[in-house]
Amino acid sequence: MPVRALWWSGDHLNLLDQRQLPERTRTLRLKRVQEVAEAIRAMAVRGAPSIGVAAAYGMAIAARQGGMTPARAAKLLGSTRPTAVDLFVGIQAVRTAWESGEDPLAAAHAYRARIVAECHQIGVVGAKLFARRPRVLTHCNAGALATVEWGTALAPLRVAWEEGADIFVWVDETRPLLQGSRLTAWELSRERIPHSVIVDNAAGHFMRTGQVDAVIVGADRIACNGDFANKIGTYEKAVLAKENRIPFYVAAPWSTFDSTTPDGASIQIEERPGDEVGRLAGRAVANAASAVRNPAFDVTAARLVTSFITPTGVFSPARLRAELRNARRPSAAKYTGTPTG
Amino acid sequence: MPVRALWWSGDHLNLLDQRQLPERTRTLRLKRVQEVAEAIRAMAVRGAPSIGVAAAYGMAIAARQGGMTPARAAKLLGSTRPTAVDLFVGIQAVRTAWESGEDPLAAAHAYRARIVAECHQIGVVGAKLFARRPRVLTHCNAGALATVEWGTALAPLRVAWEEGADIFVWVDETRPLLQGSRLTAWELSRERIPHSVIVDNAAGHFMRTGQVDAVIVGADRIACNGDFANKIGTYEKAVLAKENRIPFYVAAPWSTFDSTTPDGASIQIEERPGDEVGRLAGRAVANAASAVRNPAFDVTAARLVTSFITPTGVFSPARLRAELRNARRPSAAKYTGTPTG
Repeated sequence: MPVRALWWSGDHLNLLDQRQLPERTRTLRLKRVQEVAEAIRAMAVRGAPSIGVAAAYGMAIAARQGGMTPARAAKLLGSTRPTAVDLFVGIQAVRTAWESGEDPLAAAHAYRARIVAECHQIGVVGAKLFARRPRVLTHCNAGALATVEWGTALAPLRVAWEEGADIFVWVDETRPLLQGSRLTAWELSRERIPHSVIVDNAAGHFMRTGQVDAVIVGADRIACNGDFANKIGTYEKAVLAKENRIPFYVAAPWSTFDSTTPDGASIQIEERPGDEVGRLAGRAVANAASAVRNPAFDVTAARLVTSFITPTGVFSPARLRAELRNARRPSAAKYTGTPTG
Repeated sequence: MPVRALWWSGDHLNLLDQRQLPERTRTLRLKRVQEVAEAIRAMAVRGAPSIGVAAAYGMAIAARQGGMTPARAAKLLGSTRPTAVDLFVGIQAVRTAWESGEDPLAAAHAYRARIVAECHQIGVVGAKLFARRPRVLTHCNAGALATVEWGTALAPLRVAWEEGADIFVWVDETRPLLQGSRLTAWELSRERIPHSVIVDNAAGHFMRTGQVDAVIVGADRIACNGDFANKIGTYEKAVLAKENRIPFYVAAPWSTFDSTTPDGASIQIEERPGDEVGRLAGRAVANAASAVRNPAFDVTAARLVTSFITPTGVFSPARLRAELRNARRPSAAKYTGTPTG
């Protein structure tokens, strides 16, 4: 069974609680927009494309629930997390339908289908890059859990694997929340794709010693100039890839490209509670008297990116900038909207 | 009270159990060389200079215990961990005394006193570098716990702080064993030196955003050409410092400089059990079905080092190579010996 991060049934949104994976496979059943907002804020669902789809369904739930304007529902959902642009794109897609008198649930379904189709296309488009570069390092989870199905970073690896490539994945554990060692490792295990979990500190060692052929990550927001935000630590991997002359790929659906953000300096970086670093499984893992800083994302400059893998092609940063400037991509034009939150 | 990693009293070696800090301050009392070897292997004591001193006392204990040749005691202690050269230097210092009919315990005391004095000198020599670069990032624990007293990387920061510099320390948590968030943070808290714990992934973010003035680390073995091994992740910080034009310093006593190792490629990297990554506080923190790779150290090329801070001066890599070639440093000549294990 392929992994699905969330799905609709009857009158509610089902959502795998990603905080409990892989130990427990628990499904949350959400019938109120407030529950959807809390699930996003508390990271029961995470990964930019999944957050966008969850928020789209949250808008549809708000419309069915009644007693709330589209603007108020959008504000509630948009206030949960600041960095992933998909959140605002998903909200806007359903808000537009709702305000036009169309069926909000049908709009949420359509948004979900589009994201899943785009992620599959990322796999088809990107797979060929890894046929001859099979040992790939990834950071965080940009798999099915992060994107409803398929993944962004994992999609090309999945398709290449299905096509017979000898894929091996180095899985950064991704502190503080361990999305790599918990979620990416779990997804790869289910599909029997060979992989090893490593601490984030070890990625440079394996690059330097010639054991990594490529790095691929997802993104939470890609600015017009190609700078992008992604899980904290992504920037470190990009610099290390450059130092070791290893290709560094960013995979994303068009919903992650943000025409309203000119560059990386304009991206707001979410700072999350220090307890995410200082405590683990209810136990202190840091000196209790010490202060903690916990930025959840970092920004990587476009010059460190070899290529962007999109549903409609593989683009160098310069080529991407031209594409975005000319707005020739109907999908990009359709999805990119002003944040509502 | 200053922190001391270990001390001798009467007939036994006292050793702070660093696996339990900072939650519990438990002192191990070791009367047999086998116990000392196990404490080193299991990392109750860690940090190259502290390992060297513990092993020196282990040799003295073996001599008092009886029934073991110096060669056999050296082999037992030398087989515990492969990367830190200080282990072999500490063993050799006492073995030479033992084989010459001198008092092995006096030799261990002398070795300990020399290491402590050298670390204090590192502080005095290095402090001036941080008067105008007060926001310093460090990785792992190269403090008193790692070096008996004072520290290597932390010594210049301690002395600068005492001299009134406005020191602030970014503490990499240092997965997998969290020597940064547990040990370095604890040492800094005791002395009220301002600091923040961050995940290893965040170091690059704070460098890129101009919040880090310098990076300083210790070392487990420094080769003749200036390449060095240190805790896994050190190489990543060195590359990030270079990318961001931030000075990168390595602080070490002469016992860590190894005249028998020509370059980084000759340094053996210890691979430790995967459970150190996959389990924390008795709980699984990684997908149980996944393989884990856990190299404990990495190698950083000399070209990434701004300066080495030694007890007798601050040297560029080129200058260090000349110093080591000419063997003009009596302390280096005295300490550097062939590994015995």
